[in-house]
Amino acid sequence: MRIVSPKYIFSNGEILENLSVAFSEKIEKIGTLQDLKNEFPNAEISEIRENSLMMAGFVNSHVHLEYSHHTTEYNYGDFISWLNSVVANFPNLSQNISDEVMNETLNRILKSGTTTVGVISSLGLDLEVLKNSPIRKVVFNEIIASQPHQVDSFYQLWLSRLQKSEELQDEKFTPAVSLHSPYSVHRIVAKKVVELAKTKNYKISAHSLESKAERDWLDSESGEFYDFYMRAYGNAHRHTTVDEFFETLDLETILVHGNYLNDSELEKISGNHLIAHSPISNRLLGNKKLDLQKMEKFGIPWILATDGLSSNYSLDMLEEMKIALFLHENMDLESFGKDLLLASTSRPAKALGLNVGDISENILSDFIFIDLGNLEFDNLQKIPLHTILKGEVYKTFVAGKEI
Amino acid sequence: MRIVSPKYIFSNGEILENLSVAFSEKIEKIGTLQDLKNEFPNAEISEIRENSLMMAGFVNSHVHLEYSHHTTEYNYGDFISWLNSVVANFPNLSQNISDEVMNETLNRILKSGTTTVGVISSLGLDLEVLKNSPIRKVVFNEIIASQPHQVDSFYQLWLSRLQKSEELQDEKFTPAVSLHSPYSVHRIVAKKVVELAKTKNYKISAHSLESKAERDWLDSESGEFYDFYMRAYGNAHRHTTVDEFFETLDLETILVHGNYLNDSELEKISGNHLIAHSPISNRLLGNKKLDLQKMEKFGIPWILATDGLSSNYSLDMLEEMKIALFLHENMDLESFGKDLLLASTSRPAKALGLNVGDISENILSDFIFIDLGNLEFDNLQKIPLHTILKGEVYKTFVAGKEI
Repeated sequence: MRIVSPKYIFSNGEILENLSVAFSEKIEKIGTLQDLKNEFPNAEISEIRENSLMMAGFVNSHVHLEYSHHTTEYNYGDFISWLNSVVANFPNLSQNISDEVMNETLNRILKSGTTTVGVISSLGLDLEVLKNSPIRKVVFNEIIASQPHQVDSFYQLWLSRLQKSEELQDEKFTPAVSLHSPYSVHRIVAKKVVELAKTKNYKISAHSLESKAERDWLDSESGEFYDFYMRAYGNAHRHTTVDEFFETLDLETILVHGNYLNDSELEKISGNHLIAHSPISNRLLGNKKLDLQKMEKFGIPWILATDGLSSNYSLDMLEEMKIALFLHENMDLESFGKDLLLASTSRPAKALGLNVGDISENILSDFIFIDLGNLEFDNLQKIPLHTILKGEVYKTFVAGKEI
Repeated sequence: MRIVSPKYIFSNGEILENLSVAFSEKIEKIGTLQDLKNEFPNAEISEIRENSLMMAGFVNSHVHLEYSHHTTEYNYGDFISWLNSVVANFPNLSQNISDEVMNETLNRILKSGTTTVGVISSLGLDLEVLKNSPIRKVVFNEIIASQPHQVDSFYQLWLSRLQKSEELQDEKFTPAVSLHSPYSVHRIVAKKVVELAKTKNYKISAHSLESKAERDWLDSESGEFYDFYMRAYGNAHRHTTVDEFFETLDLETILVHGNYLNDSELEKISGNHLIAHSPISNRLLGNKKLDLQKMEKFGIPWILATDGLSSNYSLDMLEEMKIALFLHENMDLESFGKDLLLASTSRPAKALGLNVGDISENILSDFIFIDLGNLEFDNLQKIPLHTILKGEVYKTFVAGKEI
């Protein structure tokens, strides 16, 4: 048992002041230092910096770890141009996938305060590195199979990757499944994956309506994806519609991006799914930003995620929050700051089905300490905003162990 | 004479590759290393990092140095609420103005690659620190005098501050003048300051139409400024209109912010003035962003500036550019990236009347080196964007001397 006494604690959406936390693998109790010392006389007192905020570690629910090699080979500014650069450079990009780079990336992620990642595993090359990292992870084994002739073989290959990830399951490694997107997964495959997810009680994730090109394609088999598929396969047919896709998804799904969903789709999604929002990725790929006011209007929870280094310059959740503050310039600054902290902790934790994401009794001890430097606060409501603008993560704990 | 051989040079809006630069206090020549060695056989070869971009140092044309004490006493999110927090906390804020803090701030500014600052000196407390810093500076002695009874006395006080700054003039210290804003400077004072600027050939700057509150006040003596002035003086009258203000400004002026200027005002400004844009400050104070498409439409040059730490979390121009990329989400990513570099170098240099802001023969040797890490480029057009997203300034030169 250890006791720590930060100046501030972000707990259940509120800032607590001058309280202490007793923790082992999970958070045992929050109270005054004296009370905790009385209750746990043998607890070790952990020293931390003076002006510290203690909060749950960030839960980054959508990351592509395999594409962690820093590169400028991606074309930014337009989705299809970016996708073409991914396809054209795929041999080189996939050759650069290395355990060393992925491991370095995971260490940087931990250092920046993220204690849980939802990783999209596209090729299964990240499984061992993830297994060996102290980070908590939900591993979304992703399937792509857009063409009828790919349905059976790609599904079988995917099943064997899934099985490998199931063998690695442990307290901090949870297998899950992912449909790449409605434009790239044949309706038959989508149905099979969803059935499997329901049977095995797996979390599921899917990129959905990320670009105008995807919208045009799924609506009318037109637009830039027409050329894309003609070039790739010599024919161009969609193999699902948006309505079919959401009919298939009859279990809660993390819809990634969703910035081109229309109102009637949002209506249907409400109460069933949630949306993972990656503002930096959206801007770099030339996609419009998610309309957060609409999320509120339709009652759709949204969570913040970085996406991968193929469409971001870092995987730092505080950086993602800061950019969100400026990209969503119409959101009220202070309350949005607080909501961004929740969208990066308790909400994604719930979406991933994990008992983390808050400083609260009986929650697992995944937390971080943020140095607020010389900032003093006349009003505790200001702390989330200034944490995002100036905070520096200096200590990360996963399951009660400092990393 | 020294010669340096960066991998890339940003010169006159283009990326040059594998050329060298010979420089003393000014840039002597750009050419191949061999040609420069032949022409300047005694030049010393300077070593720099392998994957470096050499470019002009940033010119940050609008900074408040006096308010550099980090604090959360400012209320963010709404302009008048912020202004009230400035007024309410003024005794404490002004007490915290110290040479030490201002000097540290200037050193951080230099380290982040800014070689010239346009400093708004509100109280004259920054003059000595500026004089002793190796940074190049244009010192805008600012006047506030909104009320009729303040006209004479405040002008006299301001004149003596101006005179003090004139005594400090040297090659790197240029005195200049500033009107705080149309809402806070009486028309008589504005006229006198403008006359003086024209006589002495001084650069002039003025916050203008920064907030909706200012717009309402100047248009119709209504809105939040009415209460503000009633509280401060027991009466509330504007002492200039927007039209009067711009009639008075019959010399080129750096209009700071200008985000609430209307089309007919922009029409008049075009060809006469330019606008300094501070995206972070605008967002933190709850003001709408400058419409950059309109700047282009009306042919008004705009330059990037950080404003002071009272409305920013850093004074780092690369950070300001990065935020601009995301706040202005509708601007084309790559070309906007390049334009941001120009808005932070050659355009503000010209606005300040200084022979800096480019890597080009006979320009003063104010330049920086940026480490591009392991980024390799298949296309030189991508360099400005990636410099803003990932570049790290590691060497700063002013007048040919490394700082």
